[in-house]
Amino acid sequence: MPNVIFRYEDGTATKVAVTAGENLLEVARKANVAIDAPCSGNGSCGKCRVKFISGELDSVQTRHITDEDYAEGWRLSCCSKVTGDVEVLVPDIASAYKSRMKVADLSSPEEVAIFDRAKQDVADAGITFENDFSVVELQMTAPSLEDTMPDNERLSWAIEAATGIESVKLTYHVLKKLPDALRDNEFHVNVVLKKLHHSVLVYDVVPVTEERICGAAIDIGTTTVSAVILDLRDGKILAKASAGNGQIRYGADVINRIIESRKTGGEAKLQKAIIDETLNPMLHNMCRAAGIQGSQIYHLCVASNTTMNHLLLGVNADPLRMEPYIPDFFETEDVSAYDLRLDVHPNAKVIIAPNIGSYVGGDITAGTLVSMIWNKPEFNLFIDLGTNGEIVFGNSDFMMSCACSAGPAFEGGDISCGMRATDGAIEACSIDAKTMEPTFSVIGKEGQKPVGLCGSGIIDVIAELFRCGIISPKGKFVREGDRVRHDHYGIGSYVLAFKEDAAGHKDVEINEVDIDNFIRAKGAIFSAICTMLRSLDFDVSMIENVYVAGGIGSGINMRNAVTIGMFPDVEIDKFHYIGNSSLTGAYNMTLSTEAEQKVHDLAHNITYMELSTDPSYMDEFVAACFIPHTNTALFPSVKQEEI
Amino acid sequence: MPNVIFRYEDGTATKVAVTAGENLLEVARKANVAIDAPCSGNGSCGKCRVKFISGELDSVQTRHITDEDYAEGWRLSCCSKVTGDVEVLVPDIASAYKSRMKVADLSSPEEVAIFDRAKQDVADAGITFENDFSVVELQMTAPSLEDTMPDNERLSWAIEAATGIESVKLTYHVLKKLPDALRDNEFHVNVVLKKLHHSVLVYDVVPVTEERICGAAIDIGTTTVSAVILDLRDGKILAKASAGNGQIRYGADVINRIIESRKTGGEAKLQKAIIDETLNPMLHNMCRAAGIQGSQIYHLCVASNTTMNHLLLGVNADPLRMEPYIPDFFETEDVSAYDLRLDVHPNAKVIIAPNIGSYVGGDITAGTLVSMIWNKPEFNLFIDLGTNGEIVFGNSDFMMSCACSAGPAFEGGDISCGMRATDGAIEACSIDAKTMEPTFSVIGKEGQKPVGLCGSGIIDVIAELFRCGIISPKGKFVREGDRVRHDHYGIGSYVLAFKEDAAGHKDVEINEVDIDNFIRAKGAIFSAICTMLRSLDFDVSMIENVYVAGGIGSGINMRNAVTIGMFPDVEIDKFHYIGNSSLTGAYNMTLSTEAEQKVHDLAHNITYMELSTDPSYMDEFVAACFIPHTNTALFPSVKQEEI
Repeated sequence: MPNVIFRYEDGTATKVAVTAGENLLEVARKANVAIDAPCSGNGSCGKCRVKFISGELDSVQTRHITDEDYAEGWRLSCCSKVTGDVEVLVPDIASAYKSRMKVADLSSPEEVAIFDRAKQDVADAGITFENDFSVVELQMTAPSLEDTMPDNERLSWAIEAATGIESVKLTYHVLKKLPDALRDNEFHVNVVLKKLHHSVLVYDVVPVTEERICGAAIDIGTTTVSAVILDLRDGKILAKASAGNGQIRYGADVINRIIESRKTGGEAKLQKAIIDETLNPMLHNMCRAAGIQGSQIYHLCVASNTTMNHLLLGVNADPLRMEPYIPDFFETEDVSAYDLRLDVHPNAKVIIAPNIGSYVGGDITAGTLVSMIWNKPEFNLFIDLGTNGEIVFGNSDFMMSCACSAGPAFEGGDISCGMRATDGAIEACSIDAKTMEPTFSVIGKEGQKPVGLCGSGIIDVIAELFRCGIISPKGKFVREGDRVRHDHYGIGSYVLAFKEDAAGHKDVEINEVDIDNFIRAKGAIFSAICTMLRSLDFDVSMIENVYVAGGIGSGINMRNAVTIGMFPDVEIDKFHYIGNSSLTGAYNMTLSTEAEQKVHDLAHNITYMELSTDPSYMDEFVAACFIPHTNTALFPSVKQEEI
Repeated sequence: MPNVIFRYEDGTATKVAVTAGENLLEVARKANVAIDAPCSGNGSCGKCRVKFISGELDSVQTRHITDEDYAEGWRLSCCSKVTGDVEVLVPDIASAYKSRMKVADLSSPEEVAIFDRAKQDVADAGITFENDFSVVELQMTAPSLEDTMPDNERLSWAIEAATGIESVKLTYHVLKKLPDALRDNEFHVNVVLKKLHHSVLVYDVVPVTEERICGAAIDIGTTTVSAVILDLRDGKILAKASAGNGQIRYGADVINRIIESRKTGGEAKLQKAIIDETLNPMLHNMCRAAGIQGSQIYHLCVASNTTMNHLLLGVNADPLRMEPYIPDFFETEDVSAYDLRLDVHPNAKVIIAPNIGSYVGGDITAGTLVSMIWNKPEFNLFIDLGTNGEIVFGNSDFMMSCACSAGPAFEGGDISCGMRATDGAIEACSIDAKTMEPTFSVIGKEGQKPVGLCGSGIIDVIAELFRCGIISPKGKFVREGDRVRHDHYGIGSYVLAFKEDAAGHKDVEINEVDIDNFIRAKGAIFSAICTMLRSLDFDVSMIENVYVAGGIGSGINMRNAVTIGMFPDVEIDKFHYIGNSSLTGAYNMTLSTEAEQKVHDLAHNITYMELSTDPSYMDEFVAACFIPHTNTALFPSVKQEEI
C-alpha cells in the first residue's frame, strides 16, 4: 500500500497508507487533513491546491493550474490520483479557510461585551432571565443498621425537605454516581435540580465546593461554528470558541452537503463531521478552559440554518432541496445530548432554535430576538450574511423573512484568494485612484503578511476598484497598470500583494471571475431585499435601521457595501453591525426560559416568503448584478472618481 | 509477545497474543474464553482446569491437581503463568457451566405454556392486562407547494385527528427516520404510540404491514440469564433464549463479583459483561428468531437480585456487601435503554423489578407476583433456589422475606463434577441399596454420556447415598464397594460413571467435600425457613403449600429434597415447582401496567428480615448441616434403608 505524507507549512505532517489509485482529496478527507474543496471535489473551484514534493502522483492539469504553477509542483488534489508513495505540501491558503479551532481569551473585554449587550437589550424588552436549574445544598445523616434506607430514597427525602417538592426523580447519571458521591462527601453535597411541572429532576450530585451549573450556546454556521459555555445562574461567559465546520470538506454550501449526505452512509458521515469532529472537540477545549466537566453542562441551545440542524440530527435533508422543499421539522421537542452523542450531561436538553422555512432557520429566529426589530414600532431590516443570506423586515406588529443563496463568497469562498477572517486575511483596503496602489490592513500580529482576502476585504477592494474606475459596472478591468494584468484566457486581475510580499506561495489578487462571483452574491442579497419590500409596497426610504449580522466581521465598511450595491442606499448611520446574532440569540435562549419561548413566538409571527417561487426575483437579481445596479437611480450617493 | 492457543473439544480454537508473565485465567478472561472460576481465580475452587498440550507454562500444582492429573497435563489456569508460546485444551467440563446461548424452539408447547399459566393466574386475581402502547394507521396527504407543512407537524396533526389527543411528542428516533418513513410509504403508515399523562409519545413510524409492538422480559440470575420477547398487544411469546451470565468469569457469587467490580474499571467491565456480552447478543438472536428489529422492542422489564441490578446499572455495589448493607436503590424510575446501551428502541423504558433489601431483589418481588401467595388466605411458602436462596412466607394479609447465601451448589457450582442443567448433566439418579449401582438419566440426546451433575441430580445422589446407608448423616462414606473409594488424603468419593463411560476426561463422581458443600447450601435454605417461621411463632404444619422456583429445574425430586433436609417434612403433594418465576413475573410486568404496579405494591408490603444480623440463624444453620438434621424429629418421614 502506498503512503501519502501531507506536510504543513508549520513543519508538522500527517502520514497515511492508502490503496493505489485513490483520489488525493478523498485520502485527505479520510485522514482529516483539512484541504478546502468548496465545490466538493468536482474540479470547478480550484481551491484544493497542494504542492507536489516527491514520489508518484497522477494529476490532471486544469484551467486552475497555469503552466508555471504546474512546473512549480502545484496540483489540484481533487484531480490527482495516488499511484505510489508521495509527499505533498498543504499550503496555509488551502487550510486557512477551515481555520484551526480557537478558544477565545476571555480577559479581553470585547469578547464578552457583546453577550452582555444582547442580554441587556432583551431584558430591557421585559424578558425575565430565569431558567429551571438550581443548586441546593443538602446535609443528610449517614445510614446505619437502624437506618438502612437506600441512597436514592435518602437523597429524595432530603430534597423534599429542602424544597418542599414531593416528587423527586433522579437521572440515571445521578443514580449511577450516587453511592460514591454521598460517601466521598460524607453525605453533605450540592444537588443540581431542574424544575419540571410538578416535580424536580436531579441532574447531578457534586461536592459542596462546586456551585457552577453550566449551559452551552452553539451557532452552527455552514462554514464556521461558534460556541460559548455560560453559567446558568448569572449568564457569565466561562469559555468561548470557534472552529471551521468539519462538514466543509463535503461541500461549501448546503446543497453540496445535502447531496453528499445522500450517498451511502452519508447522513452518519455528515453528522459525525459536525458532532464528533467539530462540536465535541470544541466542548472539550472549552470545558478545559472553564475548568469544568462536560457533565456539568446541563442545557444547550443550537442555532443553525435549516439544513445544518437537519444534518446535525442525522435527518434526511433531501426533501429540503427538492420541490416542494419540505423540512422534517420547524420545531423539535425531545432532542437530548445522548441522542446526539454530545459530550455533555446526557440528559441535557438540546434546544434547537426553531426554523420558519426550508431556507430560513434557527440562526435567523435566534438572531431576530437580539436584533430587537420585534420590539420597535418603526420598520427595520435585519440581514444575516452567511453562506446563505437571510433577511427579516418588519416591526413589532409584523415581520417577513426570506433567504437567498449568496454562496460562500462573504466568507471568502468561491474567491481565488478568499479566506475566512483569520490571521493573514486582508480585512480592509483602500486604493489610490491615481497610482492604483492599495493600502490594506491584515488580521494578525504586527507585520503579518497577507495570505488572502476575507469578506470585508473583498467588499472594500471591489468598491475601491469601482470608485477608482479600475473596473466597470460589469466588473471588468478597464484601466491598465502594474497591478492590473490579464492571463492568456484574457481574464483580468488586480494584484494586492505580489508573491514576494505575501505569506502564501502566490500573488494575492482578485480576478474578474472572483468579482463576478461576488457580484452575484451581493446581487442575491440586494434583490432579495427589493423583492420583499416591493411585495409589501414599501421602498427603502421607509427603513429606519439596518442591522447586519454574520461572520463577515465587524470590519465591514458599510459605505463600501452600499457602493457595490449590496445594501440599499440609505444614510450610513442607519447601519449597525451586531455581530454573530445567531450565537448571542442562542445564548439568551440557553439562559432564559422566557427568551426561548419568545423565539418560538417570533418564529410563529414571521411570515416566510419563498423567493425561489417568486417570478420577479430573477428579474431583480439580474438587474442587481451590476455595480452598484443597472438602475443607478437606486444609488444616488454612489459615484465614481473622475480620474 | 507469546501466543496462547486455547483449543476446545469441538475442534475450534482461540489464539491470543499476551505479555510474558500473564496469568492464564486472566488471559482467558480478556479473550472471552469461557473458563469457570467460581472462586474468581484465587486457587480455592479447582474448577479452572485446562490441559497443557505444548509450549511453555509455569504452573503451581495445588491440592486440586493429583500427581496423576499433573502427569496427564492438567493445570489450574488461575495458578499458571504464560512464559512463552503455549497451547492448552479447554475441556467441556470447564466451559459447560457457562453454557452457550440457547434460543428456544417455540413450537414446543411447554416453552410457552408456563407464561400463559402465569398470566392467567395473575389475571384471575383481577389484574388487567393492558399497557400504554398502541398502533394507529394513518393516511396523510403528501406535501405540495401549496401545503408545505414540515413532516413532524403533518404527522402530529394526523395523530391528533386519529386519537383526539392534542399533545403529540416525537422521539428523536422518529424525528430522524420520518422523512424516509413517510416518503417510502407514500404518507400511509402505522405509528406506534405510548400514552403519557396528557399526551402521546410517538415511538415509531412503520409500514402499514407491520403491526407488531414488542416488549422484552429479562431475568438476570447470578449464573443464568433468561429472556423472552413478547407482543405487547396480546402477550404472545415471539422468542425465548437463555445464556450464562457473562459476569461469571469474574466470580460465581455476588460477593466475588462486587469485589471484582471495585478494581480499577471494574464497574464498567462487569456492566459490559452483562450488557454487551450477554444481553445484547441474546436480544440480537431473539430478534432474528422473531423476525423483528431491535428498535421494535419498546418496553423492557428486568428482574434480578439486588447485586445483579446494581451491576447492570454500573453502580458501585460495595455498600451492599459491607455493614450496614445499603443499596443505591430499591426502585428506579428513569432508566432507559439508551442509558444501558441495550440494542432495543433507545427510548424503551427499562423497568427494574423493585428490590426490598440488599439480598432480596427484584427477582423475588417479580416471582412473588406469580407465586400468587399474596392472593390467598392460607399461609404459603415461596422458595427461589438460585445462587442465593430467597424465601417469602405469608398470605394475602402479610408477607415476610429473607435471603441466605446458598452458594452456587444448586446450579452445580462448588461441586467437583457440578454443572448447569444442560447437555451431559445427570439430572436424576437412584441407587440400588444392595449393589450400590446407580441408575441415572442424562440431559441431552439419546445416548448422551454424562459430563457432570446438575442441582437436581446432586440432590438425588446425596439422598440416595444416605437412604442406602452409604454415607452417614454427616456426609461421610461409611460403606465400602467398587464405586466407593478414598484418595490419599482420605477423602471418600462415590463414582457415578467411570472415565470410560463418561463424556469428559475423568470419572463423574461426588466426594465428601462436594457433599459437605451441598449440605451447607441446603442447610442455609432450611435454617432460613426455620428462623423466619420461628420469629413469627409458626411451625411447618401451618404451611399450606410450598412453591419452589429457580434454575434447579423441573426435574427436582421433592421427596429427595426433603430426605436430605433441604425442605421441611410436609406432605409431598404440597410442593409445587413453578419454574423461573423471576422471568414469568417480569413477563407480566412488561405486559401489564397494573401487574407492574402490583409488584411495587407487593414490594412495599413484604417485610424484609435480615438473617445475617439475627443471632439465632447461625445456631439453626449449624443444626441443619446434617442429613437430614441434628433434630431428626423434624423429619419423621425420612428413614434409611435397612441393609
